[in-house]
Amino acid sequence: MANIPYKIYLSEEEMPKYWYNMKAVMKELPGPFINPATHKPCTAEELSQVFCSDLVEQELNTTDQHIEIPEEIRNFYKMYRPSPLVRAYCLEKLLDTPAEIYYKFEGTNTSGSHKLNSAAAQVYYAKKQGLTNLTTETGAGQWGTALAMACAYYQIALIVYMVKVSVEQKPYRKAVIETYGGEIIPSPSNTTEVGRKILAENPGTGGSLGCAISEAIEVAMKTENCRYVLGSVLDHVLLHQSIIGEETKTACEKYGIQPDIIIGCVGGGSNFGGLIAPFMGDKIMGRNNIDFIGVEPASCPSLTRGKYAYDFGDTGKTTPLMKMYTLGSGFLPSPNHAGGLRYHGMSPIVSKLYHDGYLEARAVEQTKVFEAATTFARAEGTLPAPESAHALKVAMDEALKCKETGEKKTILFGLTGTGYFDMSAYMSYNDGTMTDYIPSDEDLEKGFATLPKI
Amino acid sequence: MANIPYKIYLSEEEMPKYWYNMKAVMKELPGPFINPATHKPCTAEELSQVFCSDLVEQELNTTDQHIEIPEEIRNFYKMYRPSPLVRAYCLEKLLDTPAEIYYKFEGTNTSGSHKLNSAAAQVYYAKKQGLTNLTTETGAGQWGTALAMACAYYQIALIVYMVKVSVEQKPYRKAVIETYGGEIIPSPSNTTEVGRKILAENPGTGGSLGCAISEAIEVAMKTENCRYVLGSVLDHVLLHQSIIGEETKTACEKYGIQPDIIIGCVGGGSNFGGLIAPFMGDKIMGRNNIDFIGVEPASCPSLTRGKYAYDFGDTGKTTPLMKMYTLGSGFLPSPNHAGGLRYHGMSPIVSKLYHDGYLEARAVEQTKVFEAATTFARAEGTLPAPESAHALKVAMDEALKCKETGEKKTILFGLTGTGYFDMSAYMSYNDGTMTDYIPSDEDLEKGFATLPKI
Repeated sequence: MANIPYKIYLSEEEMPKYWYNMKAVMKELPGPFINPATHKPCTAEELSQVFCSDLVEQELNTTDQHIEIPEEIRNFYKMYRPSPLVRAYCLEKLLDTPAEIYYKFEGTNTSGSHKLNSAAAQVYYAKKQGLTNLTTETGAGQWGTALAMACAYYQIALIVYMVKVSVEQKPYRKAVIETYGGEIIPSPSNTTEVGRKILAENPGTGGSLGCAISEAIEVAMKTENCRYVLGSVLDHVLLHQSIIGEETKTACEKYGIQPDIIIGCVGGGSNFGGLIAPFMGDKIMGRNNIDFIGVEPASCPSLTRGKYAYDFGDTGKTTPLMKMYTLGSGFLPSPNHAGGLRYHGMSPIVSKLYHDGYLEARAVEQTKVFEAATTFARAEGTLPAPESAHALKVAMDEALKCKETGEKKTILFGLTGTGYFDMSAYMSYNDGTMTDYIPSDEDLEKGFATLPKI
Repeated sequence: MANIPYKIYLSEEEMPKYWYNMKAVMKELPGPFINPATHKPCTAEELSQVFCSDLVEQELNTTDQHIEIPEEIRNFYKMYRPSPLVRAYCLEKLLDTPAEIYYKFEGTNTSGSHKLNSAAAQVYYAKKQGLTNLTTETGAGQWGTALAMACAYYQIALIVYMVKVSVEQKPYRKAVIETYGGEIIPSPSNTTEVGRKILAENPGTGGSLGCAISEAIEVAMKTENCRYVLGSVLDHVLLHQSIIGEETKTACEKYGIQPDIIIGCVGGGSNFGGLIAPFMGDKIMGRNNIDFIGVEPASCPSLTRGKYAYDFGDTGKTTPLMKMYTLGSGFLPSPNHAGGLRYHGMSPIVSKLYHDGYLEARAVEQTKVFEAATTFARAEGTLPAPESAHALKVAMDEALKCKETGEKKTILFGLTGTGYFDMSAYMSYNDGTMTDYIPSDEDLEKGFATLPKI
């Protein structure tokens, strides 16, 4: 085995040329999208009214394990990829653990996270289709920033419905998106029917991701040459994010690294789904026995306490129904600081894998997460995003277990982004005002009551 | 010549093991530090009361061209280096220029800039000397962050005197420093004699870098096992920053890249001095004919409109006198957004090289700088720090000249950091409220009147 450097960078030649489509190897597939009006599976034609055609094709592709990444997208990736696979030597030393810890770090681009991997692809396909406009929503802001960057590159006009409370909490995140030429509309807004309805019902609301999705879809449907793009949850987003897993696997093979545990945070599930893709494919085919752990906030526990059911992806109940672990589209997420994990549902692929026992899920409380994040930052230098720190927390827990048992496990986790735009959360942790929130069973029941009956 | 990738990363084995000491090859040396009380050159012993002993030795070293980087520091560097040398393919295409543009990008670490290169070294030597405490100042915040990161790693207590107006403008920058365990004191403060004096004279002042330096030095002198560390200007800081130039040169040689022009922004001069070091050494020895251009803000034009004279490094007039280009320690810098370039003086090495005709200097106005920064961000993805964007602006100017003349020059510039913590400046550019400021001759005369008579 080669001597392992602090950071493994693949060369351009070693960068993956294919995305990994887990659905082509899964023994059972997630349930299809269901049209809420007809209760029948959605057709490609129906989906193409909202999404770009090539993306719909990818969304419905259950046969091709390897899907070629177009050269134009690979060139875009070369601007900020490959991302480093980092050996956490300093953290290992601090924890005094026999475990080897690795993290795949996606935060070195300006959007600050892995979201750019799918933005680059989605905007390319929009351009290819001759579209001129896109709409989307953003919560924490990583997706909106990534999409604004890709739209600036491909010169496509972009409207971002940003959760109102995020606009207010993160003026600088808004400023980045605007610097890249994106237009921000705080959601809920008066620019859409669904926004006006929500505002009339809840005049003081700070908005939610589910509501911003509804507004962005409405505008996309009404605007010529325009489609809606989504930064997580959907199968084609996980497909694009498989670049993370493919790079990681190539780097592991190059250096003879064999992970025992792979850990990622889960909100909509795209980074975790992308990171695990080729490893999970191998596990399904009986080629490894890796433990996969998805980590969610205790405040929004869709996998650990949600129901596996058909549900809407948005608050306005305008999307197709998806079979997934969900807290109900009417579940009101608490103001947990990890904005990117504040979503009622979960990727149908990740949900199905979880349901079938291929992965484990854990929920962690945010003060513990920030404690781990601060320890990590001081040891390893890099300041993690609150979302990523959920994975980090469990990776540290596992490394400390190894210390107790003496096992020399290889632990790999996804560090999906940086915390540069989340400093108000760090401030509340630093000054001791951060609190934890765990929804009561009654809170959950209120959310479940909003599940559609089908 | 090999095909040039978008990003050149050296391997760990290719990382430089030596810093480059320009003074060992300069035909004439900068004037020595002068003790303002005796008007005699400062001794190593005098300097060691303020600075770590090993750093004083490096500061006074005029004979060793290559100074070995201790293994511990190289291991620290491996956590975030090598930094990429990026081929700006997308910017070249946008500008439609025959020029080849490269930039060495130092912004991928959490401190967001090149400052960590010297922080890692200085804190290592402090630890080695058995010190337990350090003090410093920070303006824009990059240095304070970098030092807090290094102090967290080496477990040294740190007090950062942060320019009061920066603390107010950049609460999140303060939060990052505190997350790494650094203590922030807004300067001027009541914690020092010099602070109390400045506050009594100017009760409403927002502070200045020169004033924060005075406070940090005073505390270092009065505290046991404590020294003061500085993030720019001094020769040993340029020495540490030569890692930038050494990596760049190694990457250029590996890929057969021969720069015609090398450009950097200059505030105190450390990143520029570090970037050019080995190239300038070769130029002095007649081995190349590269044009070197230092770029400063028109609002604080120490090279282009300053005097080459002995001056204090701080407002409180407590430092040794240094021979440098200066606007006078009493010059009041305007609130230009590029905080890191808001300093009255200039590195004695850079000053001497400029004085002897080895490099060119240009002053640029900030609205033009932000225009270039926005163009760059949209083309290349990366959001530059306002400081770095000064270099970028001139690189783009030179590339456009090539477009007119048809020359295929190779232009290389230093992109010293990211703009994540400077979004309020981008906001004022985006909304059209940013203005330019050029000091009048009268303004400059007021500054020159504060120069010491020696």
